[in-house]
Amino acid sequence: MNNNPIPLIKLVGAGPGDPGLLTIKGAEAIRKAPVILYDALASKELLEMAAPDCVKVYVGKRAGQARMRQENINELIAYYATQYGQVVRLKGGDPFVFGRGQEEAQFIRELGMKVEIIPGISSCIAVPELQQVPPTRREYSESFWVITGTTRSGNLSNDLSLAVQSSATVIVLMGMKKVAAIAQLFEEAGKANLPAMAIEKGSLPGEKKVLGTASTLPQLIEKEQLGTPGILVFGEVVRLHPHYDFANIASQQKAQNIRA
Amino acid sequence: MNNNPIPLIKLVGAGPGDPGLLTIKGAEAIRKAPVILYDALASKELLEMAAPDCVKVYVGKRAGQARMRQENINELIAYYATQYGQVVRLKGGDPFVFGRGQEEAQFIRELGMKVEIIPGISSCIAVPELQQVPPTRREYSESFWVITGTTRSGNLSNDLSLAVQSSATVIVLMGMKKVAAIAQLFEEAGKANLPAMAIEKGSLPGEKKVLGTASTLPQLIEKEQLGTPGILVFGEVVRLHPHYDFANIASQQKAQNIRA
Repeated sequence: MNNNPIPLIKLVGAGPGDPGLLTIKGAEAIRKAPVILYDALASKELLEMAAPDCVKVYVGKRAGQARMRQENINELIAYYATQYGQVVRLKGGDPFVFGRGQEEAQFIRELGMKVEIIPGISSCIAVPELQQVPPTRREYSESFWVITGTTRSGNLSNDLSLAVQSSATVIVLMGMKKVAAIAQLFEEAGKANLPAMAIEKGSLPGEKKVLGTASTLPQLIEKEQLGTPGILVFGEVVRLHPHYDFANIASQQKAQNIRA
Repeated sequence: MNNNPIPLIKLVGAGPGDPGLLTIKGAEAIRKAPVILYDALASKELLEMAAPDCVKVYVGKRAGQARMRQENINELIAYYATQYGQVVRLKGGDPFVFGRGQEEAQFIRELGMKVEIIPGISSCIAVPELQQVPPTRREYSESFWVITGTTRSGNLSNDLSLAVQSSATVIVLMGMKKVAAIAQLFEEAGKANLPAMAIEKGSLPGEKKVLGTASTLPQLIEKEQLGTPGILVFGEVVRLHPHYDFANIASQQKAQNIRA
């Protein structure tokens, strides 16, 4: 089966969900793949692009179960690469943005196998963008800071404490369940009224969003029942959203303050 | 010519340069486009994907000339959209990352025309990634901060002063000509030895890179004659580059300190 002298593993970014946002190179890799190891964020449509005899191996979370350990995923990569000579490892979003793609690449190199990286559209930029909110804009923000809401320890990242003091647009991935604590950091930094938004299932048909401020975001998320995977954006740039209605959002804010 | 009741403008991200990193949706938009307005960072191969009768209009910098004013680009978008009913506006990288894509989208909305956004692979993540350097990794960095090196005023962004104090990976776009001043900020923050890299023409055949530290980066860029467009990365994650040879880089550093 294996005709390649040195096995090749392609780490492919699947993009944020919309299959049209896969790259041309990523699509070619999937079409030619004898084996695809994929996780929960890679959409079904992408797997349907594979050849009929392609072996598709799910290595993501199962409902109610913990995610597969990275060591086990690495073992599967090595096993299938040895068996088939070539493997596509398909990862949601971009494989290097909070995705452990670099750890997999390093593991593959250390095995003496070859790795090719095919970046994907990262949701951290594209999901707000599809809502017409840019990460920066002159006179609004000169930089953006991308932070994970879920660290290994389960605590908030220390970087968030500095981020809330900066004038960067703060984009939080995997932060939906931590939004109350994050909002509190902004409030403590005197930025309760900073425009903020949350987006669930960005780029997909079930996309949902809420627009508000740092302090109203947690309640809006609860009210509209936004879940994961989701993205939070804090910054003046949120004001550029076509439906951002500052007057209305400010009055909600006021009502909330009166109730509080 | 114009059969669309309301003109539609597609803002398409061309990606970092490698034509294989265009999205499937972006490729479809180019193939169907009656008109493409493109800038300097969109590669020739992408334009060759267009139909033979597609009108291709260059709106980027000309050698020795200043870039076209945004107002003029907006006027051209409006003109061609009215004439042809549909326009592709092709922009290097991702149209919303320091690319004024949002300003164009807003202009289009305000004209009463329709806009569709097709994100592109942003060089800020993908170019270091293709060198196997991730923006974050557990035990190295929990966040990344993307900053432009070239602000409207010509000064360094104030955000850089805070960024050098953070533990975020700092990724600077359009900073190649400002690298000495940026390196100095890291030195002043006590981070002269922070691993750093610069990459020119990332993802393209002429790609060049240098690996060093915050304090050695300016000289390395000069020695290897790296030019624009380029990306700077400052952070412990640079140490993960397959060719990062810390012992050697440290000894260069030492030699430099002795000379100084």
